[in-house]
Amino acid sequence: MTSQVIAPIFAVAYEEGMTLRTNEAGQTRSMSMSTKQNVMQRYIDAWNETDAGRRRAILAEVYTEDCTYTDPLAAVSGRDGIDQLIAGVQKQFPGLVFSLAGKVDTHHDQARFTWHAGALGHEPAVIGFDVAVLEGDRIRSVYGFLDKVPG
Amino acid sequence: MTSQVIAPIFAVAYEEGMTLRTNEAGQTRSMSMSTKQNVMQRYIDAWNETDAGRRRAILAEVYTEDCTYTDPLAAVSGRDGIDQLIAGVQKQFPGLVFSLAGKVDTHHDQARFTWHAGALGHEPAVIGFDVAVLEGDRIRSVYGFLDKVPG
Repeated sequence: MTSQVIAPIFAVAYEEGMTLRTNEAGQTRSMSMSTKQNVMQRYIDAWNETDAGRRRAILAEVYTEDCTYTDPLAAVSGRDGIDQLIAGVQKQFPGLVFSLAGKVDTHHDQARFTWHAGALGHEPAVIGFDVAVLEGDRIRSVYGFLDKVPG
Repeated sequence: MTSQVIAPIFAVAYEEGMTLRTNEAGQTRSMSMSTKQNVMQRYIDAWNETDAGRRRAILAEVYTEDCTYTDPLAAVSGRDGIDQLIAGVQKQFPGLVFSLAGKVDTHHDQARFTWHAGALGHEPAVIGFDVAVLEGDRIRSVYGFLDKVPG
């Protein structure tokens, strides 16, 4: 059942007195689900990009200037902060490959998805879950959680 | 394995160049996990509170003034916006009972949890998942998703 079918059935619950944040809703309506899926793939690509110049280019494409990234072990802000975080992880775990796991679930200006990280061809050593909040077509904030970490 | 044990093992990855957002981290460190769990329980309580005055009191306790709430079917802001949303849902679905499902997973200023809604003593008709972002001891933003809706 698609969300197009679900929405009318369930939306009646929300009719009364709803104050839509029209600007934000307007922005996100112009961004297709596949575009948001692409942004999340590029977000993952940044974690795999070991060339500093290319990584910074991806980060500029993916994140707003005032972006924040928070997971259980790191809280950084700005593209530079995220860049240094990724560089640190890559230095500590060479060969770690990140990938999207399953579907990216998106609506309005937000997306949720699970990701895997591990050596290529092996079970993921790390499984994480993120909610990304977008502003226009860039990520403003990542709220990350961990579901599996190396024991 | 607790996060106290996991953190030192995995945190090495994040050492290099990490720019901590000290103010926010400082705030959240002073707020215990059980306090955040309580805030999320009060958040659920607001959805169950049908007395308008008592519900507004809970909302003032739980949310910052500039709060936002976004799920696949509603995007509202401010305590009044959230109050009207809840009132609309309660009117449309009298007897719907909301509850936390399982553990609230918290770190820094964020929490994730699954919730159920349904008639008391029945299988949940709706299953949702939220990430709540706090500011001090109040919720600033809820980023909600739906995992099961009435078919």
